[in-house]
Formats: sequence, structure tokens, C-alpha cells
Amino acid sequence: MTVSVAVSGASGYAGGELLRLLLTHPEVEIGALTAASSAGTRLGQHQPHLVPLADRVLLDTTAETLAGHDVVFLALPHGHSAEIAAQLGPDVLVVDLGADHRLTEAADWTRWYGGEHAGSWPYGLPELPGARDRLRGANRIAVPGCFPTGGTLALAPALAEGLVEPAVSIVSVTGSSGAGRSLKTNLLGSEVMGSARAYGVAGAHRHTPEFAQNLGAVAGAPVTVSFTPVLAPMPRGILTTASARLADGVDEHAVRAVYAKAYADEPFVHLLPEGEWPATAATVGSNAVQLQVGVDIDAGRLVAVAAIDNLTKGTAGGAVQSMNLALGFAETTGLSAVGVAP
Amino acid sequence: MTVSVAVSGASGYAGGELLRLLLTHPEVEIGALTAASSAGTRLGQHQPHLVPLADRVLLDTTAETLAGHDVVFLALPHGHSAEIAAQLGPDVLVVDLGADHRLTEAADWTRWYGGEHAGSWPYGLPELPGARDRLRGANRIAVPGCFPTGGTLALAPALAEGLVEPAVSIVSVTGSSGAGRSLKTNLLGSEVMGSARAYGVAGAHRHTPEFAQNLGAVAGAPVTVSFTPVLAPMPRGILTTASARLADGVDEHAVRAVYAKAYADEPFVHLLPEGEWPATAATVGSNAVQLQVGVDIDAGRLVAVAAIDNLTKGTAGGAVQSMNLALGFAETTGLSAVGVAP
Amino acid sequence: MTVSVAVSGASGYAGGELLRLLLTHPEVEIGALTAASSAGTRLGQHQPHLVPLADRVLLDTTAETLAGHDVVFLALPHGHSAEIAAQLGPDVLVVDLGADHRLTEAADWTRWYGGEHAGSWPYGLPELPGARDRLRGANRIAVPGCFPTGGTLALAPALAEGLVEPAVSIVSVTGSSGAGRSLKTNLLGSEVMGSARAYGVAGAHRHTPEFAQNLGAVAGAPVTVSFTPVLAPMPRGILTTASARLADGVDEHAVRAVYAKAYADEPFVHLLPEGEWPATAATVGSNAVQLQVGVDIDAGRLVAVAAIDNLTKGTAGGAVQSMNLALGFAETTGLSAVGVAP
Amino acid sequence: MTVSVAVSGASGYAGGELLRLLLTHPEVEIGALTAASSAGTRLGQHQPHLVPLADRVLLDTTAETLAGHDVVFLALPHGHSAEIAAQLGPDVLVVDLGADHRLTEAADWTRWYGGEHAGSWPYGLPELPGARDRLRGANRIAVPGCFPTGGTLALAPALAEGLVEPAVSIVSVTGSSGAGRSLKTNLLGSEVMGSARAYGVAGAHRHTPEFAQNLGAVAGAPVTVSFTPVLAPMPRGILTTASARLADGVDEHAVRAVYAKAYADEPFVHLLPEGEWPATAATVGSNAVQLQVGVDIDAGRLVAVAAIDNLTKGTAGGAVQSMNLALGFAETTGLSAVGVAP
Repeated sequence: MTVSVAVSGASGYAGGELLRLLLTHPEVEIGALTAASSAGTRLGQHQPHLVPLADRVLLDTTAETLAGHDVVFLALPHGHSAEIAAQLGPDVLVVDLGADHRLTEAADWTRWYGGEHAGSWPYGLPELPGARDRLRGANRIAVPGCFPTGGTLALAPALAEGLVEPAVSIVSVTGSSGAGRSLKTNLLGSEVMGSARAYGVAGAHRHTPEFAQNLGAVAGAPVTVSFTPVLAPMPRGILTTASARLADGVDEHAVRAVYAKAYADEPFVHLLPEGEWPATAATVGSNAVQLQVGVDIDAGRLVAVAAIDNLTKGTAGGAVQSMNLALGFAETTGLSAVGVAP
Repeated sequence: MTVSVAVSGASGYAGGELLRLLLTHPEVEIGALTAASSAGTRLGQHQPHLVPLADRVLLDTTAETLAGHDVVFLALPHGHSAEIAAQLGPDVLVVDLGADHRLTEAADWTRWYGGEHAGSWPYGLPELPGARDRLRGANRIAVPGCFPTGGTLALAPALAEGLVEPAVSIVSVTGSSGAGRSLKTNLLGSEVMGSARAYGVAGAHRHTPEFAQNLGAVAGAPVTVSFTPVLAPMPRGILTTASARLADGVDEHAVRAVYAKAYADEPFVHLLPEGEWPATAATVGSNAVQLQVGVDIDAGRLVAVAAIDNLTKGTAGGAVQSMNLALGFAETTGLSAVGVAP
Repeated sequence: MTVSVAVSGASGYAGGELLRLLLTHPEVEIGALTAASSAGTRLGQHQPHLVPLADRVLLDTTAETLAGHDVVFLALPHGHSAEIAAQLGPDVLVVDLGADHRLTEAADWTRWYGGEHAGSWPYGLPELPGARDRLRGANRIAVPGCFPTGGTLALAPALAEGLVEPAVSIVSVTGSSGAGRSLKTNLLGSEVMGSARAYGVAGAHRHTPEFAQNLGAVAGAPVTVSFTPVLAPMPRGILTTASARLADGVDEHAVRAVYAKAYADEPFVHLLPEGEWPATAATVGSNAVQLQVGVDIDAGRLVAVAAIDNLTKGTAGGAVQSMNLALGFAETTGLSAVGVAP
Repeated sequence: MTVSVAVSGASGYAGGELLRLLLTHPEVEIGALTAASSAGTRLGQHQPHLVPLADRVLLDTTAETLAGHDVVFLALPHGHSAEIAAQLGPDVLVVDLGADHRLTEAADWTRWYGGEHAGSWPYGLPELPGARDRLRGANRIAVPGCFPTGGTLALAPALAEGLVEPAVSIVSVTGSSGAGRSLKTNLLGSEVMGSARAYGVAGAHRHTPEFAQNLGAVAGAPVTVSFTPVLAPMPRGILTTASARLADGVDEHAVRAVYAKAYADEPFVHLLPEGEWPATAATVGSNAVQLQVGVDIDAGRLVAVAAIDNLTKGTAGGAVQSMNLALGFAETTGLSAVGVAP
């Protein structure tokens, strides 16, 4: 069975990564490619690395151009996916790479994004408890934000098993592609290279409520989240360091046992051997999460570090993984845990 | 009055930065330059940017080659400065860029570095309370570690005024020159570029007790420190994000007032206007600390971010600033708060 | 039919890239992995991106550890492959990623590398005239140098058709992984980042005679080669700009026609549409050569620009492509023309 | 004598570098700062590294806001400087960092830039024969393009002395700040990092006629120029490799002698010792040109390599150097040959 797939936002970074993965997916045929301001141009002008698709011409992003496919991936500015999804009908699998349907609480949406909430869709992080059941057969999927992907997986086992108190501190160092291909002065190469810069500090980043939602669900109780993103001079990758106060009596041995068990059967989450810590380079272009956890006795904190590729596991790879579940394909189809390094 | 200065470790990054600064210092004459394995070679082979010194030949590092100068800067592997300093006599100002004399507690030294402690010297972070008095006229100075420089200044006002609880979480993103010019596979350009990597995680980094010492002194009580360094693909710069739980009743207004007052008269610490967050690029080659602080109401935490150049304010610039105090020069002589950007 | 493959130099960059490609090659089973100083360690310590092979232990590189496989890839310092190949016997396909067997003239070898020549093997650049015939069924293959791969393909059509005079000027901008994983100060991240540096200038680089050999063969007459490599701050990629004086009466139209025809059926050489020029990012991790050619009327020169990934098409991908030909697999098996960007 | 200086384009890279230099210039007082779309904002928002000027507010760029100063630096899009200069009067020194007044031939201007030529001004490359005489006391100065600065100095001695034939091949690897702070997709950090890209290939770059003008003047006869710029992932720096066919009978010894003599008294041009080749890192933030020259016997070509900082010697530093000459200050005032490395 081959499914036909349409991709909006095909001239952007998320769209480009999605197409790169779909080109190697054996069950997929790539159909309509759409864009906003780039409509009418060749894909090769925007994504010269996607050689087999170079001569495809980008269409406008409308429900009409996206219709007639089995799967539609939406990579749109927030606020636009609900209307298009409504026109595509329930027999089409719609995978939203944007933020519109990630949050379950309407009040959270309104506070962080403004306007009315378009409703929540099954959340595409299969490694969370119960997530695979919700994704199998789904016709709507909300792909997680890139930061919550790594940060949630770094802390979930500890919170699920009560190893730490429900107040976590997360600092994520990210490559520039996470900001997309939009033209902003502070994303110019001259500004990004040679510099590290914090932004969205002190609770201002929109991924904060998504962290809280994920971790709270895992912990079974509200979790307080302090989140700080840092932009580093690299195109791809997120390195997340996450820590929380250890519960009484928890030691390194217990921590490792919990993490080892939690991810023993996960195809894309790799707990590293003791003494090795993750680097983002090892995950470039791969759907892997490289993870390590340790205990700081003096500080009384558990520290977990996770490396992902923000465009792959953090966006497009996670989207394909969830699509595979929704359509009944093997979960790892078209995805790899092997990175491109150095 | 011109003082003559000798620099050991002149072929390394700290030594090179020191020479760059001393070349513009109006009160200084550069004397002997020494090195270990590079002794006998031209400085220009190692530091081609130091054009006026290119033809200087490096001497062996011994008490003899360093003797006869008013000031001696030591940039040596740890454990070597005490012996050389002893031979230089009390009329020579010895400034140690290494770790040997930073820690005041012998037990801390033995735990973190091993062996016997060589004793503590006046600590070269003039912005700390009382530090200038200890540095004026000193003949021995211990230059702070690069991470504690930024992190201490980021948190000191909050701890001094009781704005936060005495348990802090610090994540510092650093450029590669902080690791020095030593040949290690994980410092190769091919490994560093395109990657972020945590190391010394979970309380393993040797700068941890120095943080605790500084912050404890400021707070007047023990401070628990969780410290995580992250290596980012840039040659210079440290971006430190530091957070701690707010004490009851502290709000953003109080926080800003405390920080503004604490650094109002500091020539090198710049509290940015509200809404602007530091980037390391702005401090390249400068002795500035660019600082911002915010309050995360939801998480109940104060978050401070500091950017420095690890080689300048974090090492060689800090050393010159303290030398100026010790010798009675204006504190800012030969130093600049202006960075080289982009 | 599955062939078993042994890889020496598995802890290096060329070996790691080879393993990355072989992991997706459907006709190959990965056997012994060997190394020099890293023998006895886990592969995961050196190549954390190769998750499925992380727990493989590296063996010493000897004829014994490499024996018993259908294919042996050698990534050794020059001067060592002939002896090992002799012990492996004629029924084993030996693919040498080093320089030992690339040059056909013994005098060239002695001049550029010193010592006695070990003889030439079929040269693994399938896109050269007649090369596929020599590679099909071969049991020994010399993989081209990374610079000659792109530079030869950039100029071959022009020289074969007499569009230019037989004196060419080549400047290649390369990423740092081309220098391998050896510990040299000038390959440290702190030295490489933020800097462009020429080396091997004025005819000093060892790839110069290989350029001359390839281009002379294509032209049917000696070709003079001026070659300058430049190290740029990126882990992968070679951008080659190559130019030569136009022969009388040659215009842009003729040039494009020759290039279009020369590469019309090549699966990995992509002549870009007019007005688009290659960037190395588009080839990262791929076996593609992205190529463009133009005519500078004022200067009277043809200018060709080629982008490759030095580790893929320039080393390991080229090796797999030639192996495929030697063993009768489809030439593109296990290889992709799609890069990982941004 | 202190002169007052106004700077237009103060929010851009050239303007920022100019201000960085002027802040340390002892004879200068910084007056009006102007900009286009950034008018009305604080300089600190755009140039956070220029701490002492952070609270200056940018004015609109008009003849009125720039009037009343002794010196006016113009960093404007091409075509705008003549009109403003006309209103400033002959007693004001106008230094144009743009292209408007560099070319002496009106036909060249019209061909390469379009429209009518605004006339040529004294060309601010003091190291060219006779240039200092033309710059001393000048009231109008055209600052050279960044590429012609390094490339001209790399080849001038060889052409002046007839060491090479008058047909040169120049490839320049440049950092991204040369393209300015304009918002273009291909200047985004995600596009620039990890990639080398040729542009303006085959005679299309506007600096080509400026090269030809400079080199032709030095040679005393027309010089054919093939110029190819390559964008590399670094914020600053230009590494120029330049080559030309050796005239009969010229050997390495003669070449070195000519270059050594040509630049013996130049404060900013450093011919490196034999065997050392320039890297751009050594010139960051400095006004130095690091230069090396060699002879490729096999190819029959002279090869020269020059490293500069495109923003300093290539733009703002060159402008200050010429200003110093025009106003009668010591030529090196406010400038340094020492770079910031690593």
C-alpha cells in the first residue's frame, strides 16, 4: 500500500526535512508541494539538496491544492491549520507541525498564543505513556514542539517514578534552523556565528506550557517548569540539560535503573553508557534521542541531558514516526537512528 | 611609571590574550615570554595575530627566566605556580591564571584537584564586596575561573540581598578556547563545529566549589550549586544562565532595583535595558560583562543571564584589571568594554 | 547475495562515513572493524552517531583480522596498503581509501610521497571515460583523493572537448574533516572556527599530480595544474572553483552543451540550471556532485564550480560506488543524491 | 586638535566597525549617528558591543543631520553619496564607504552599476604608488571595496615589477559580514553555517572592474582579471588567493625580494616569514594585511595569499587610515595591526 502525501510549507526548513525523509519512505508517494510567498517557483531554488524534487513547482497553500491525498502535512504559521483541516475531511490524515493543536487547555492557548483555541489533537510523541494507542488509527496529529520533544523525554521517567520533585529547570541550546527560514536580523549568519544568546527567558517562551502539560501528565500532578532557550552557532540540533531536586533516598543506581527500563524497548531513544554524554552532532539527520542521566549528590539534583536534531526527531522525523503509527506502518519506516557526523 | 612584565604560557590562548591586552597597556613593558614545549620557537608561529611580538623567541618556563620583572603572569598546569612564586620573592607581583590559589579551603582543593593545597591568594574578581581592598597593593593574585566569573556576577546581588533561596542552578554555554590549546580529539574543529555537548555534568566540573565559595561568601551562608557546562561551536564567549527560587514576596521591580544598584558604578558590568538579553558576540575581546535579570512568576524563579569573553574578562582581562588595582593604576587601564562584533 | 565487509580505520572520519553508508546498503553485512591506537575500545566511543554499531569492539588492523571477508576497505596512513592487500589474496576486493595506488607513474609517487611505488590500481572515479569498464569485476580499487574528485569532474568535459587550453587553475575550499582525526594544533576548533587559511600553496599539495594525471588522460595531452586548497570553518564539504583560458571561438552556449551532454546520464553529477551556483550544504552526506559552469568573456576564461561532500563522494561514497561496480550491484545501491540541509 | 565626526549607516556592519575604531581614536569626537529604517531607535539595540554609545539615538540620514561636522562618513546604498556630499561643502571631509566614487571611468560605472557616474574621488588605498600624495589634504575619499583591498595588495608588487603576465586569477573566500546586514535568505545563519558557496562567478561581481583599474594602474597596462568570490561560514575575514603566469626567468628569490622591498615600510602590510601562510583569524578587528607569496614551478605561476578583516582594513579601518592622511594625523592613529584570536 502506497499512500499519497501532500506537504505545505515545502520551501521552509521543516518542509524540506519532511521531504528529505519522505523521499526514502517506501510506502509514500510525494504529491502536491505548496508554499506561501514561494508559490510558482521551482523547489530546487529553495531546497537544492532535494535533487529528485528539484523541478517540482510549488503551488499555493489552499485546501484545494492539498486535497486528494491520503496524508497532508501542514507547516503553517499558527492559527491556520484548523480551517484547512476542516475542509480536508476525516478520511485524510492531517499532521500539523505547527502549534495549533498541541495544548489541551483552551486557556493555555489563549494566554500563550492569543485568540480562540482550535482544539487539541493526538499528541505525536509516541514515547509518552499511552501515546501509541492514541496515535494508532488517528486522523489528526499534533507534532510536538522541538524543545518539548527532547526535554520531555529527558525528564519523563524521573517524574513518572517520583525520583524528583515536581519543579524542573530546563536549559536548551538550539541551532538556528529551529527559528525557521524567516528573515530576521538576529538570525543572519553574521549575528549567529561566534555567539551564544539567550531568548524567551524567564518564562516567556511558548513551549513552556507544552512542557508543563507533558510533564504534568507523566507525573500525575502539576509540574513547575523553568525553561530557558539559548541560540548557538549551529544549523541543527538541540542539547537539553534538565534538572530537578531528587526525592529523598533516591540514588544514582535507582535513577539509572528507572531510565534503562523506561527506554529499553524504544527504537529511537538511546541511553548512553555511563560516563558518555550526548552531543548533538551524533543525531544530525537522524530520529534518535541520545540521552544520559546523572545524580549530583552535593546539589541534591538529578541532571538529564538529551540531544536531538530539532528538524528530524524534533519536527519532521517525529511527524513521520507518528504518521507511521496512524497508518499502521512499522513505526521506524523511513527513519534512521544513525546521524551524519562529523 | 612603567612596569616590566613576564608572561609564561605565551604560546597558549590565555597567554596570547594577555599579550594582546598588554600591548595596548600604557604602563607596561613586555619582557620575557616563556612556554613549555614551544620554548625556542618564534612567538609568531603560535600567535600570528600579535604582529609586534612575532619575532620574540620563547624561553623555557623557569623561575630564572621569569625573574627580574615587576609582574609575572603564570598560565601553567595546576600545581606549579606555588614553587615558582616562592622563588620570585615578595616584591614581585605574581598573577596566577591557573586554579592553584583560588580555593580558600584546603579540603576543597584536595577533593577537586588532589594533593596538597598551596594556599589561597587574593581573589581577582574586583566586583565582589570587599575585593578591591584586598587587591590593592597585593603581591599575589588568583585569577578566577572563567565560568565562576560570569556566574558569580550574575547571582551575587540576588544572594547578597536575599532575593533568592541559597540553591542555584547554573548552565554555561562556552566557546572552545576555554579548554586551552591542548590536543584532544573532542576539541578538533570537526568535532566542535555543528555540535553542542555537555560535559562535567552532575557536579563533576572543578569550577563548582569556586562557585560555591564565591556565592556563599556573598550570601553569608552556604549556597548549593548545580553547575552544567555546555561546549558550543564558537571560539570565544561564555553565556551563563543562572536561576534560583525567589524568596517570598520578591517581585521583578525589587530584583531590578537591586541589580541596578549593585552594578551602578562598575565600569565593566552592564545591566542591559529591560527586554534586551545578552549575547556573547557583544563581548568578544572586551572586558565587559553584559547582564540581564528577570523574574519567572510561574516558575517562581529569578533568572539571570551573563555574557562574557572567557579569554578576556574570564581570564586575561580580569588578570589585567586586578593587576591595575594591585599596582595602583586606574582599574580600567588597557582594558575596554567595547567588543568586536559581528 | 550478501557480501561481508571489513573496515579498517573504523574510528576515523573516512571509516565512520563508510560505516554510515554500509549500514544502509542492502547487499552488505558489516564484519570486522579495525583501528590502530583505538583497538580494544567500543566503536561508540569514537562514532556515537553509528548507534547500531556502538557496542562493536575495534580489533587491531592486521591481515589476519581483515581476512575472511569478501570486501576489505583500507583507510590507512600511506605506504601500508600493498602489504596487507598481498596477504588478502585476489578473490578479496580490496578498496584503498588512501593514496598508495592512485598514481600511475612511479616517479610521481616517489617525488610526492617518497619511497617506492606500490603500483597503481583501477581508479575509482566512475564518471571518467572508460572508468566503469575498468572497475567492473576489479579486485583492487584506488579511491580518488577528495580534491581531485570534484576538480576533475569540474574540468573534464572542457578538456575532453578542447574548450579550454591545457593549463588550469583550481582553488578548493574544504571543511576540516578532510584532514582526518589526527591531533594537530591547527585543526583545533578554536583555530578553525572564524578563519580561512590557505595551505599546501604554490604546488605543494600532494593531490596536484593526481589532478594532472586525471586531466591529462581526459585531454589526451599534458595539463598544467595550479592548485590551492583553503581550509574553511565547516566540518564537511569541498567547494572547488576551477578555471582555464577558453580556446578560440568557444562561447557559453557551446560550453553548456558540452557539460549537459557529458553528465546527462550520470546519476550523481547534477549540472544546475543556469544562474544557480553550487553550495556544499546541499551535498552533505550525499554522493552528489553539484556543478555549474560559466564563461567569463572579459577574462577569456571558463569557470566551473563543483560542490561535494569530501567524506561521501570525496571518499567513502565514491568507494561504495566503485565497490558496487566491481561486485556487479547497481551502481547507486546504498547511496543517495539527497543531502542533509540546512 | 579634535575633529567632530558624523557617521551614517550607524546601525549596519560597516558603520558599527567604524564607530568601534573611532571610539579609540584620540583625535576624534563622535557626533551625529544616522540610519535609514532604524532612525529613532537606540544604537544599543543594533550594536550592543558599542557600550559607550548604547544610548545614542539614531537620526535620519540627511544632509542636515550630517552637517556641522568636520568629517562625514557615508555608508549608503550606491547612488546616494554625491547628492549629500554636494550639500556638505568643500570644507567637510567626506569619506564614502560605498562604491559611487571608486571607478575612474564613467563607462565602467554605467556598465556595472547603471545610471550616470558621480565622478571619482581620491582612492583610499594608501599602499598604492602615489596614493598617499593624493590622500593628504583631500576633502573627498572613496574607500576601496573589501575584495580589491586584499587582492590588489597581493598582486601589485608582481605587476609593478613585471614578474607576471597581465592576466590574473583571483579567488577570495569571504565572511558573511561583507554582504552587510540586509535581510536575504541566503545570508541566514542556517544557510551560511556548514556551507561554502560561490557567487558572482565568471566575471559577474562588481568588484571586478575595480581590480582591473587598480592592477592596470600599477602595471602601466591593461590587466585581465578573473575574479571569483566564495562565501564561507565565518562572520569576518577575506582570504584572497591570487595567481598569474610568471614572466620568463623569474624565480622565487626574485619574487620574495620584490615583495619584501615593496612592503618594507608599510605599517599594516606584513609579509610573513617563508613557510607561513596567512589565516584570516590573525587579522580579526585589525587593520593588518597578512601576506605571503610563492612560486609554483610546475605550473609556472606566482601565487600570493592575503588575509584581511573585511570590516576593518577592508572597509572601516581603511577609511580611518585615509582620514588620518587627509587630516594630517599620523597614519596609524586609532588603528592596530594586532588581531583578536583565536
